[in-house]
Amino acid sequence: MFESAELGHKIDDATFDEMAPALRESLLEAQFELQRQARFPVLILINGIEGAGKGETVKLLNTWMDPRLIRVESFALQTDEELVRPPEWRYWRRLPPKGQTGIFFGNWYSQMLNARVQGRINTATFDQAAEAAERLERMLCDEGTLIFKFWFHLSKKQMHKRIDLLKSDPLRSWQVSPFEWQQAKVYDKFVRFGERVLRRTSRDYAPWYVVEGSDANYRNLTVARTLLEGMQAALKAEARPKTQPHAAPLISSLDNRGLLDALDMSQSLSKEDYKTELASEQARLAGLMSDKRMRRHSLLVAFEGNDAAGKGGAIRRVTEAIDPRSYRVVQVGAPTQEELAQPYLWRFWRHVPAHGKMTIFDRTWYGRVLVERVEGFCSQADWLRAYSEISDFEESLTSHGVVLVKFWLAIDRDTQEQRFKDREEVGYKRFKITDEDWRNRAKWDEYVDAVGDMVDRTSSEIAHWTLVEANDKRFARVKVLRTINEALEAAFSRKKD
Amino acid sequence: MFESAELGHKIDDATFDEMAPALRESLLEAQFELQRQARFPVLILINGIEGAGKGETVKLLNTWMDPRLIRVESFALQTDEELVRPPEWRYWRRLPPKGQTGIFFGNWYSQMLNARVQGRINTATFDQAAEAAERLERMLCDEGTLIFKFWFHLSKKQMHKRIDLLKSDPLRSWQVSPFEWQQAKVYDKFVRFGERVLRRTSRDYAPWYVVEGSDANYRNLTVARTLLEGMQAALKAEARPKTQPHAAPLISSLDNRGLLDALDMSQSLSKEDYKTELASEQARLAGLMSDKRMRRHSLLVAFEGNDAAGKGGAIRRVTEAIDPRSYRVVQVGAPTQEELAQPYLWRFWRHVPAHGKMTIFDRTWYGRVLVERVEGFCSQADWLRAYSEISDFEESLTSHGVVLVKFWLAIDRDTQEQRFKDREEVGYKRFKITDEDWRNRAKWDEYVDAVGDMVDRTSSEIAHWTLVEANDKRFARVKVLRTINEALEAAFSRKKD
Repeated sequence: MFESAELGHKIDDATFDEMAPALRESLLEAQFELQRQARFPVLILINGIEGAGKGETVKLLNTWMDPRLIRVESFALQTDEELVRPPEWRYWRRLPPKGQTGIFFGNWYSQMLNARVQGRINTATFDQAAEAAERLERMLCDEGTLIFKFWFHLSKKQMHKRIDLLKSDPLRSWQVSPFEWQQAKVYDKFVRFGERVLRRTSRDYAPWYVVEGSDANYRNLTVARTLLEGMQAALKAEARPKTQPHAAPLISSLDNRGLLDALDMSQSLSKEDYKTELASEQARLAGLMSDKRMRRHSLLVAFEGNDAAGKGGAIRRVTEAIDPRSYRVVQVGAPTQEELAQPYLWRFWRHVPAHGKMTIFDRTWYGRVLVERVEGFCSQADWLRAYSEISDFEESLTSHGVVLVKFWLAIDRDTQEQRFKDREEVGYKRFKITDEDWRNRAKWDEYVDAVGDMVDRTSSEIAHWTLVEANDKRFARVKVLRTINEALEAAFSRKKD
Repeated sequence: MFESAELGHKIDDATFDEMAPALRESLLEAQFELQRQARFPVLILINGIEGAGKGETVKLLNTWMDPRLIRVESFALQTDEELVRPPEWRYWRRLPPKGQTGIFFGNWYSQMLNARVQGRINTATFDQAAEAAERLERMLCDEGTLIFKFWFHLSKKQMHKRIDLLKSDPLRSWQVSPFEWQQAKVYDKFVRFGERVLRRTSRDYAPWYVVEGSDANYRNLTVARTLLEGMQAALKAEARPKTQPHAAPLISSLDNRGLLDALDMSQSLSKEDYKTELASEQARLAGLMSDKRMRRHSLLVAFEGNDAAGKGGAIRRVTEAIDPRSYRVVQVGAPTQEELAQPYLWRFWRHVPAHGKMTIFDRTWYGRVLVERVEGFCSQADWLRAYSEISDFEESLTSHGVVLVKFWLAIDRDTQEQRFKDREEVGYKRFKITDEDWRNRAKWDEYVDAVGDMVDRTSSEIAHWTLVEANDKRFARVKVLRTINEALEAAFSRKKD
């Protein structure tokens, strides 16, 4: 979920100075138009890691926009007036009216996260709180509110670097708050439950935007642009159908550094090493699959990737290792008539493996947010809601013993072209290449965006995406096998939460 | 929530025989049209009290409709195939395809209810399960499924009567299942958690229908007609906007016996008794309001009722009893400009009383499902979603110490006419009657329906509606005071769940 926000995004000062004035002007315009129309309020929720620049960015927004139309509310300790009323009352009383913007710091999410991290509530109660938040937001959206939810993120490394830097400087060490010290200690927990609540409350009508916080220029521009685009879309929509997803865009990175760009595609494996490692990983997998602990687990491996990235070959290296009675490979193509008569996920549910078994999906339920999105086979509303439906699906699986491993096999454009041409030339490979492959290739950039969104929105502790650098087939195959093995071993040794 | 289903609804055999054939024919027609269009499936969930006739009604539906297009699924013990997969798998594999109808007995609701009643899970986990059900149903609806959820109800008295009758008859005592014996013991718990889950999962796109089960004719006709109307509406809608509420009607009673009809409007109080009782209840209220336990509670009294039912007088008798510094009366009329700029419930949230205090609302947040519904001031989608928003609102209140007492002051048509005329004649009362009152009166029957739906959907253990027979003002005033006092006393002595 936080993958894209740990890449080290950066915008240099020159670029910032070039982009900022226009953005600022447009934001002001949008703000005045919001006031003029007075059809709906804007509510901005600010959450995330301490020290990721939440305060600085809000300060900047306040400077950029007209402060008369924006109100920053922070909810730290309850006042005595608030203490004697239901906890929601403090939020209601400070909701922004139509035409205005409210920024909520330390909102309901902070409350539930802190309570859970400190162990004051258990996970079921935490989920109850998340559900209450979802219901509240749904109602606000139904009533017209345009909601933005920002999660300011720092990787663990970035956070420690920041703290070390500050504390070594006597003039600035006061900037590290006591709360921050504490959070540094519980970072893993905080991020784990943060991910859980983001997964549960990111809905099409009120999605979360995860912003990498370490570089101020990048962070500020990203937040400002997200707000601007979301507001402009909502202001333009004549009579926004109330329960429709608000038209805020999914984030696409400002510095053009996506997850896929961050991969080191030069990784490879010699023939020699490949042979040894492959044999050893295959043996390891065979052993794990027949382990007695497998009786309480099943294995579900999902393959997605660029055309010609080598999914078939990788799958074969997995299945070679194991007893044919214990696995099934499901190739996902056009749905059958029977499948068309059912909800979208039905065709995948039917192949969920029993305990002790493995199912490999060659293409998966992510079709909806990849090909169906890019090709326009379904409406935007459909693929937007698919992210949370998929999360629910995967949570059902993993909370009942299914070990879920998801692969994106990535190759670069040149490699793909080369492989396409090879396929056209070699007789027995010719069936593998069609006009459609060339057509898909023309939409390369759109697929890159779709893949980035997919990973950001559906990679989580319970259902992690593994990006596989697949320019070198040998490297890819071994990485796939090793990842599966590691996932199984982790599942076998994991304790219940 | 179950008020309307404990009235003793009955349809005599002659009426049944007269209505059944046409209904049956239309149901068959709808079923074939469903198959012909094959645009969506119908899913019917069957839940409720044991012995309330669930099985018999489903049997009848099967006889009436074409059994080739309907599949009854029951989910008792998990099969060994199901045991080794996530629990949802068993439901997915039996979902009806487009064009067909599935009837699910012993579905997800039965599982969670039994688990909670037997104490295998706590309330937070129970709520988690309810939320998962809601997400599943929302996804199904988004994918096109038309969902009907029926709760077959028996009052405790009816249930015991039935069991006594059967067990005294050696030839029929086998009809009482072991499960039923057990449920008789835990009836209160079962109904309490049933109510909780109904409240949480009754959404505009998949509402619950509560059906009184004691009379077979009434029960069967009600279910059949609900299905028919819902299916016809969905079949007619050309391209049903997916997330819109499905157009199934709210239930209006087939035998024309509503909640309000069941009131004994002849109840009255002599002047003498009134004086004594009023004084004693007022003293009791004064004592309770200054009780030290009031520091952890606040009191919120909501008044709704027919025009000229005597709300003002009743409110005055309440406030007379207490210190003016400890209460506030909020008269709800047209919203202010400031209120219009906020979500609907904002104007009520702002007056939520602090601990130790009382707020009396003269007209309330129920305006949306009463006057706004009847007069068409808001869309059907808006007032349909309001039921669950109101439930959420009231749950926020009551789970944090607010004692919520809701009154509907009922008078009959003749009494209203008399009072209107009196008001026109008496000088100092003339300001109380307007043309609008006469206009509202013309819509009497529509208001009766709206009130019935409102009570059925929003009366619950945590936020009970009290219907007050108000033809006699003295009787009404004392009943109001006594009800408030009892609610406070109950809250003071209640333990946490």
